[in-house]
Amino acid sequence: VLYRLTIAYVGTAFGGWQRQPNAPTVQQVVEEALARVAGAAVDVVGASRTDAGVHAEGQVAHLRLARALPPHALVFGGNSLLPDDVRILGASEAPSEFHAQRASAGKEYRYRIHGAPVVSPFARPFVWPHAGPLDRGAMAAATQSLVGRHDFAAFALAGGSHRASGREIYAAEWSAEGAELVLRIVGDGFLRGMVRSIVGTLVEVGRGRRTPESFAALLAGAPRSAAGETAPASGLCLVRVFYPEPLGGPPRV
Amino acid sequence: VLYRLTIAYVGTAFGGWQRQPNAPTVQQVVEEALARVAGAAVDVVGASRTDAGVHAEGQVAHLRLARALPPHALVFGGNSLLPDDVRILGASEAPSEFHAQRASAGKEYRYRIHGAPVVSPFARPFVWPHAGPLDRGAMAAATQSLVGRHDFAAFALAGGSHRASGREIYAAEWSAEGAELVLRIVGDGFLRGMVRSIVGTLVEVGRGRRTPESFAALLAGAPRSAAGETAPASGLCLVRVFYPEPLGGPPRV
Repeated sequence: VLYRLTIAYVGTAFGGWQRQPNAPTVQQVVEEALARVAGAAVDVVGASRTDAGVHAEGQVAHLRLARALPPHALVFGGNSLLPDDVRILGASEAPSEFHAQRASAGKEYRYRIHGAPVVSPFARPFVWPHAGPLDRGAMAAATQSLVGRHDFAAFALAGGSHRASGREIYAAEWSAEGAELVLRIVGDGFLRGMVRSIVGTLVEVGRGRRTPESFAALLAGAPRSAAGETAPASGLCLVRVFYPEPLGGPPRV
Repeated sequence: VLYRLTIAYVGTAFGGWQRQPNAPTVQQVVEEALARVAGAAVDVVGASRTDAGVHAEGQVAHLRLARALPPHALVFGGNSLLPDDVRILGASEAPSEFHAQRASAGKEYRYRIHGAPVVSPFARPFVWPHAGPLDRGAMAAATQSLVGRHDFAAFALAGGSHRASGREIYAAEWSAEGAELVLRIVGDGFLRGMVRSIVGTLVEVGRGRRTPESFAALLAGAPRSAAGETAPASGLCLVRVFYPEPLGGPPRV
């Protein structure tokens, strides 16, 4: 029986989603908890391999069990064994062809830049503290150029699993919320480190070190070295993963 | 020179405000950071001795320095040495008679009860997860009886520094925010553990185990054993401390 899970986590204490030898990861603690619930080893496949320190409000994953369990047993049994910073928000049976990563029709991420000179300890784990003026008009113009299909090779970190670097961005927009600038970005898929590289480079536009035009020029397959710094993981959150109908429906823009 | 500080902290990792031998405390890390800024040992006196695990958005403290420093040096120098979960939000010179604890004219606390069956990991450190129905009408009636001057001996944990247990509550009110019930309570002062004991006992009212009338009867100096359980520290936050004019002004209700 195939199950679809929605999982939220505060990524601060984890070496990202994907299992790895040298750090605790979200995939690892979820697999360990659900193996105890199921009474057998399980493989949990996530839609997004979020990097170390990145948060998720709506990661989606799938797993297959030889012996069927009611979905709520995965939710409540799993949560009773998981650390407080990881929660299974929901579980449901999925069509046998469902695959959390390959069936995804898009993802939505949020990135928070905090501009106050002193950052509240309640906000700190979830933002990039970046004091100093940013030209919001220039950042908005550059951000606008992201929308559409482009070659994002300039914004891909090494080590990603994707070879082709063409992706379509459906929506990308900053909003001001108190002392914060918050980016919402929705696309059909994202290369490894793509949102953080985009944000780091957009901040260089905001500081007047690049023009919106030179930013837009990166979207035609420029090399990684042409883009800016990678923004810190703390500011990034995977908000939701989209699937075609009837599995939730395509990206909402 | 006397300084007044406003300090925020996520209390999860601390054994409370007050220095103690067996656990890191907020007072200790603030004193250690500011001693390095001042180049001399400092005593930092807080308005409220928040218990282990309790949070603060607006703790107030004072300290005296033999050699004057600009207040912003305390803020930025201190924050550069403090852990991310403690921030000095502001500093100013204070009149020589100012005393963070003794001059206080009142305090405001918030308590968050989270009623969803699964609690988001982003909310978890700041709430009491309490699924199951609560009779909000009965809780509101009992809460209303708190307003005014009463003998809160039934709600005082052992180990507090206060002998007299008479206190005046200016405002106490629950509001529903999504899956949460949030108490705002303002008073001239609070005994040790008083808000958490009140919340634990109000939840017994909400579960039908006590009547609002029997709750009100506790406010005439009933013994500790007559009240209910102490609610968890995670749900409690010191919101602000009030001082007479011209030091900010009396409690706002």
